[in-house]
Amino acid sequence: MKANSPTQKTAAILPIGNEILSGKTLDTNSNWIAQKLGHHGIRLREIRVVPDDKNAIIDALNTLSQKVDYVFTTGGIGPTHDDITADAVADAFGLKLVRDPKAYQILKEYYGKEELNPGREKMALVPEGAQLIHNPVTAAPGFRVKNVFVMAGIPKIMKAMVEDILDSFEPGIPFLARNIPCAYPESVVAQVLADVQTKHMDVDIGSYPKIDEEGGFMVNIVVRGQEEKAIEIAEQAISDALGSIKI
Amino acid sequence: MKANSPTQKTAAILPIGNEILSGKTLDTNSNWIAQKLGHHGIRLREIRVVPDDKNAIIDALNTLSQKVDYVFTTGGIGPTHDDITADAVADAFGLKLVRDPKAYQILKEYYGKEELNPGREKMALVPEGAQLIHNPVTAAPGFRVKNVFVMAGIPKIMKAMVEDILDSFEPGIPFLARNIPCAYPESVVAQVLADVQTKHMDVDIGSYPKIDEEGGFMVNIVVRGQEEKAIEIAEQAISDALGSIKI
Repeated sequence: MKANSPTQKTAAILPIGNEILSGKTLDTNSNWIAQKLGHHGIRLREIRVVPDDKNAIIDALNTLSQKVDYVFTTGGIGPTHDDITADAVADAFGLKLVRDPKAYQILKEYYGKEELNPGREKMALVPEGAQLIHNPVTAAPGFRVKNVFVMAGIPKIMKAMVEDILDSFEPGIPFLARNIPCAYPESVVAQVLADVQTKHMDVDIGSYPKIDEEGGFMVNIVVRGQEEKAIEIAEQAISDALGSIKI
Repeated sequence: MKANSPTQKTAAILPIGNEILSGKTLDTNSNWIAQKLGHHGIRLREIRVVPDDKNAIIDALNTLSQKVDYVFTTGGIGPTHDDITADAVADAFGLKLVRDPKAYQILKEYYGKEELNPGREKMALVPEGAQLIHNPVTAAPGFRVKNVFVMAGIPKIMKAMVEDILDSFEPGIPFLARNIPCAYPESVVAQVLADVQTKHMDVDIGSYPKIDEEGGFMVNIVVRGQEEKAIEIAEQAISDALGSIKI
């Protein structure tokens, strides 16, 4: 794998929620975010799913916020007892949890003139100094503290927040990928791929075996990188080498 | 959340693969394993996706194997250059990577009498002392080292391996879950749920907001636990409390 260049930004996704760990909910958010990060030239280094457990969230935040440039959390910012992300983020960074006047105003407008109930008020609590992230779907905002972006878990809201955040970043060099479907089994092409990878360290060559509909084995070869020319050269090298295989 | 009882086993899933982090592949394996673990009464504490990078795999193995009873890895045990899981597991536990005679025999029989090429031979390399995990679909076995179960990433093979592994465990008390669909928005039921959770610590009460097809907000309340009676009692308490809400 190519070493990160000095300007290459890295990220981690931290989905928070018992529903993913119980198997009730398939986490599709991370896949969507992963693709978006790739388009923006940000290398995703880790996805870490933790339960609605304050210590687990704090541990993950401490590790990930030091390891990568940006951490994106999903889930746990609603009004209920199992929504503890804001509290955990505050603790992780040694900040007080405070009522954000702007968030409070947004929530008041959204819910009408009546008094906010405690659940609704809770959604205005953010770590001191946090910058709000706009929620165009409901009202409860996400927020940013240092390099951590705290977002909703509902896909529609999460997606709007990610778009907003990425729009605010300086554009990076998008990752590009080329697929080379290949009818040989993986064990036949292994040596070829290893040789090409060694000679073309500016791309990542991946090999993804699949069982096709008739039970046959094939492999999807993927060349991924940030320079179109480098990808084309590696792709050509693989095609040439595959053509010379005799089995 | 109920503290784990002394006999309650815990687990983590460690999917290994650039294809998940690039967004190319949606990780559905973890969701399938999560459900299986629940049926077997094992509490899943974390899912951590790492790239095909030896140091990242070793770091994750070191942390997770100490934190939970069982670690299940998926991916990275094939014949190609990006399959480095066996090597990383050996390093994490300070073991030599050796050719397992049984694995070698299985691979030889599968691929026929011809000499094994280096890619195929590689799949017979496991950390010294590892126990093999049967692969009924292709040939390359998985293996167990201490509390780490190393499995294939191809769903069909992974599933067969998980079934085999779980069958070898002593049966636990399955997790059960009950859904209570609720037409109120989350911010209305938050207080009710918090009260019931406080009085019923033998279950986990989760609240999952959803946007329905007409754009309305509803919430799926989930009561999860290992004792049917306790779940029923909490479910009744929630129903009663929801019935008394006036908005």
